[in-house]
Amino acid sequence: MDRLPGPVQERGHVENSRYEIRLSGSGGQGIIMAALILAEGAGVHDGKYVSQTQSYGPEARGGKSKAEVVISGKTIDYPKAIQLDLLLAMNQASCDEYFKDLKPDGLLVVDSSLVEQVPTSRSLALPFTWIARKRMGNELVANMVALGSVGYLCPQVSLKGLEAALKTRVPAGTEKKNLRAFRAGVKAAQEVDLSALPPFITPADEEV
Amino acid sequence: MDRLPGPVQERGHVENSRYEIRLSGSGGQGIIMAALILAEGAGVHDGKYVSQTQSYGPEARGGKSKAEVVISGKTIDYPKAIQLDLLLAMNQASCDEYFKDLKPDGLLVVDSSLVEQVPTSRSLALPFTWIARKRMGNELVANMVALGSVGYLCPQVSLKGLEAALKTRVPAGTEKKNLRAFRAGVKAAQEVDLSALPPFITPADEEV
Repeated sequence: MDRLPGPVQERGHVENSRYEIRLSGSGGQGIIMAALILAEGAGVHDGKYVSQTQSYGPEARGGKSKAEVVISGKTIDYPKAIQLDLLLAMNQASCDEYFKDLKPDGLLVVDSSLVEQVPTSRSLALPFTWIARKRMGNELVANMVALGSVGYLCPQVSLKGLEAALKTRVPAGTEKKNLRAFRAGVKAAQEVDLSALPPFITPADEEV
Repeated sequence: MDRLPGPVQERGHVENSRYEIRLSGSGGQGIIMAALILAEGAGVHDGKYVSQTQSYGPEARGGKSKAEVVISGKTIDYPKAIQLDLLLAMNQASCDEYFKDLKPDGLLVVDSSLVEQVPTSRSLALPFTWIARKRMGNELVANMVALGSVGYLCPQVSLKGLEAALKTRVPAGTEKKNLRAFRAGVKAAQEVDLSALPPFITPADEEV
């Protein structure tokens, strides 16, 4: 099981180039766990250089959650994300706040169960929380559903590496449940016609 | 329950200054979980600026594990550790590799169950794994025992904040067990006479 060739890869992301991901949402959504698995998949199992960072400031008490993963084929000088290749927003507040940090050809991935206003059409709106609740019977695995989609969309990490990392990182006894959720997320992203996405981000209010 | 006044604080660590910690050991020892809790305790509960980072490179396959926490009263420019104020080494290999990154007045904390050769007398050698195995009945909580000691020794984070972070971060159902281990670690560090430590690191082989 590995990523199918798709338009995201074909748009020129070189294997060795720096690839910046930010995962964001609310506290309790498992954002940091998803970032850890993403980093370990790429770093330990796929052999990439990876930096995974969470930063806290005075805003950390507000219940927001944010984690970054920088993946590269070469040594990483600065470990934090500067211009995002991929932003996952698991709630409206994080979508609004971090959208501006995306590259012009970056990709926005939102949880359509929780994000109503999407600021660009260069985005994938997938119902991660809905899938977790309705299909998996457990809203808490929405992070793993999202991770499956992000993993499918990110050219720098293999789904095989992610699954291996997931199994060692989730609490003992929850591996199967989390793996099912992860695969549901992969499937959800596979069903999107990525070639229909515009090549560059245009803010929604400028599109008219 | 909070840190007792102790020589580590009295030696001039200002509340607002940058404080760099590296936790290191083998994969499977729960190094990253301990770092996450340390970061969330300081960042979310104590309101400090915190960056928590793990980096992976070609060496990541060797089963080593390393995580960094930088804590400050001010915004953090560079999120990775440069010169360590505190190094936790949960095995000999990480002690040998990272000792050189300590500041001259930095503090080395080693798991004496697993580290036989300690390169400086400015160190605390505490039997984290032994305490976890013999007193808690579970070697897997050695990371929480170590976290208790590190939390006691680190002037930038409160034990109250760490306990709050621990409860939300460990797998559901394991809170009590992990909290007991954490408190055993606090106690182990409290029993050390910190005033007997030399003020600066001198490599053991130069001491004769």
